[in-house]
Amino acid sequence: MSLKIEIIGIGNELTSGRILDQNAGYAAGRLSSHGFQVTRILFISDRPRDIRSALLRAGRRAEAVVITGGLGGTLDDITAEVAARTFGRPLRLHRSLLNQIKKFLKNRGLPWDPLFEKMAWIPEGVELFHPRPKAAGFFLEEKGIPFFFLPGVPAEMHRLLDRQVIPRLLQDRPDQQVSKQRIYKIFGLLEPEINRRLQDLEQKDGSVQLGFYPNFPENHLTVLVRAEKAFQADQLLDKLEKEIEARLGDTIVGRNDETLESVLGELLRRKGLTLAVAESCTGGLIGHRITNISGSSDYFDRGLVVYSNRAKRDLLGVPARTLNRYGAVSKNTALAMAAGVRERSRSDLGLAVTGIAGPGGGTPEKPVGTVWIALASSEGARAGHYLFGGRRQQIKIMTAYTALDWVRRALQHDSLLLGR
Amino acid sequence: MSLKIEIIGIGNELTSGRILDQNAGYAAGRLSSHGFQVTRILFISDRPRDIRSALLRAGRRAEAVVITGGLGGTLDDITAEVAARTFGRPLRLHRSLLNQIKKFLKNRGLPWDPLFEKMAWIPEGVELFHPRPKAAGFFLEEKGIPFFFLPGVPAEMHRLLDRQVIPRLLQDRPDQQVSKQRIYKIFGLLEPEINRRLQDLEQKDGSVQLGFYPNFPENHLTVLVRAEKAFQADQLLDKLEKEIEARLGDTIVGRNDETLESVLGELLRRKGLTLAVAESCTGGLIGHRITNISGSSDYFDRGLVVYSNRAKRDLLGVPARTLNRYGAVSKNTALAMAAGVRERSRSDLGLAVTGIAGPGGGTPEKPVGTVWIALASSEGARAGHYLFGGRRQQIKIMTAYTALDWVRRALQHDSLLLGR
Repeated sequence: MSLKIEIIGIGNELTSGRILDQNAGYAAGRLSSHGFQVTRILFISDRPRDIRSALLRAGRRAEAVVITGGLGGTLDDITAEVAARTFGRPLRLHRSLLNQIKKFLKNRGLPWDPLFEKMAWIPEGVELFHPRPKAAGFFLEEKGIPFFFLPGVPAEMHRLLDRQVIPRLLQDRPDQQVSKQRIYKIFGLLEPEINRRLQDLEQKDGSVQLGFYPNFPENHLTVLVRAEKAFQADQLLDKLEKEIEARLGDTIVGRNDETLESVLGELLRRKGLTLAVAESCTGGLIGHRITNISGSSDYFDRGLVVYSNRAKRDLLGVPARTLNRYGAVSKNTALAMAAGVRERSRSDLGLAVTGIAGPGGGTPEKPVGTVWIALASSEGARAGHYLFGGRRQQIKIMTAYTALDWVRRALQHDSLLLGR
Repeated sequence: MSLKIEIIGIGNELTSGRILDQNAGYAAGRLSSHGFQVTRILFISDRPRDIRSALLRAGRRAEAVVITGGLGGTLDDITAEVAARTFGRPLRLHRSLLNQIKKFLKNRGLPWDPLFEKMAWIPEGVELFHPRPKAAGFFLEEKGIPFFFLPGVPAEMHRLLDRQVIPRLLQDRPDQQVSKQRIYKIFGLLEPEINRRLQDLEQKDGSVQLGFYPNFPENHLTVLVRAEKAFQADQLLDKLEKEIEARLGDTIVGRNDETLESVLGELLRRKGLTLAVAESCTGGLIGHRITNISGSSDYFDRGLVVYSNRAKRDLLGVPARTLNRYGAVSKNTALAMAAGVRERSRSDLGLAVTGIAGPGGGTPEKPVGTVWIALASSEGARAGHYLFGGRRQQIKIMTAYTALDWVRRALQHDSLLLGR
């Protein structure tokens, strides 16, 4: 069984939403990836009673507790004081920490203030992490449960977590098992369907755990495995990957840190192909996503945002009669846009989208969310029709993502005209 | 006394740190800004026992409870089921919601799966918010305490919070004082400076509270006032607004729901002007932002993403000798791009950006983050030089935002050539 850990974030700025947490979420991710089980994350205000009760309850439920915040020099930083009272360990002035603080202020040319002394009063019998002025975290054990008190400054908190807390927990961990994780990014299958296809891969003994979370417009799947040795964990992950690929097919857009754009860019680069885009309803979002990848200039030369009919005629040569007869949002216009941008830019591939992002502009025949996507290559061209739900921005995102995914799938299948 | 509220986020993806919370923090900020007191935020896993105990405890301590997550269609989405058992209200199939889900799948061309039906089973005697397939939140009252169950998809959660939860809480609020809030979106001043200029406006008696939130690349300021009557609160807000405007000047980009793009669009529309853009390093992001506004086709006709030198020559007529002599990232190129896109599109204004987004491509003379922005009008053209910090995406965002803000300021000052 993996160690159960609770995380407590202390500070009015968290409960009031004035700042978004950057600590507990980080700690949860790092601890989980090492195979620990974070069972609760709690944010409370700087109130002594709440802090005391949170510490005591967490100590009863969990096997380790990580606390962040409230160790600074202002009056509302009371974590050390409340911890001292809660665990019956009086505060003691830590002289070497006090000297560090004085030196730090002197180096920065800042004046001494009595409030700074407060940061050097630490509960008796604790172990101080790296006595540094801005990161005076400490560690204590109460009834066999380790409590890690970390500062709220994210950079310092992350450092102490990675260098002090996790090594110490790993050292104490009763099981010597290794945990490894892979993430799969999926597009074109909804969560229930992914779940249905994969759920039997999960193992009740905890050796294989699957997690699903939507990350619009993708769905993410995490596969966490546990094994005696690292190489066994890798082997297990490889075996699972084959199975997952067989079951999900090319709905897997990327793995781990890969994005649709990075995968697409790598495919274009490997095949030595270039891509140009013509965007109507997405307004530039497709070009923006493509150029989020450093080095995209190797395969992306230009994009045309043709918002008006005049722009479609001027810049892409879409015939006026096509626009008049079929409308700007139509198969014929999309095909003419894709062919036009491909030819005029002398690119290998031309990608085009045209649609109604709303909320205005819909008609019974072409409601809001109606989108045509077209892809042209030397092999010819094809177009596809979609009806996306949601609001303006979601329709734009779905359109851009679906269009880029057309290119990825075509390149992966080595057939530029392969339909979905 | 202000109403005490607890927030509960449900999902393994939260406790495992696989995704960072986008809901509880948002809710805490919005609720606090309306004068409610968020006392605890708790994240727990999808375990029935933990959910049950969290609901019961929160109901005993708080005066209202907001729950997010666990309402989806996968097996681990169990919030509705656990709520039903905890509060002794059997699950009932909600037929109209089921039909909505079926319609949604059909429009997307997705297959039906029995798991989807699960999303339409809702505890008896609750009030369903906006029965929409991806946002089937609901509301129940237990021993006088309102429990709001919201979906975990951030966009939907935020919408329901703002449109359903907050209005309902404001209506029920025991204190008779009226709270009103305005948000100011500021660009071009850092938080400490905004704070320094405004802090004396805050009132110790709570009648005027200021809040600062970074919202990259903007800083947001919330002004919350309390008064006996609504008209008094409005008067106080109006008085404060005059003072804030005097102190912050045209760094105020917008108010409340306004965005830079919406303000800019309104200015263009009012003045009857059109805008065309030529983007290099932003890759389409400027066009994307402009077209996030419904009706932007009234003033935005086209955008050109000219990533390569060839595209800059072909599409904008930037002379080869300008590119060779000064480089693609230069004042001369930026000016030629702005003039080129303005003339060729026959728009009133031409906006252009060219820069080095990195991480590659920097030189000692032109390091990563070097950006030129140019704006051309019938009055002439001007260009400005920037050096932005951060990573590729941040540089793109800062460039796009700064460029759009040039246009806003020029239009507000009625001088298209006004510098910053």
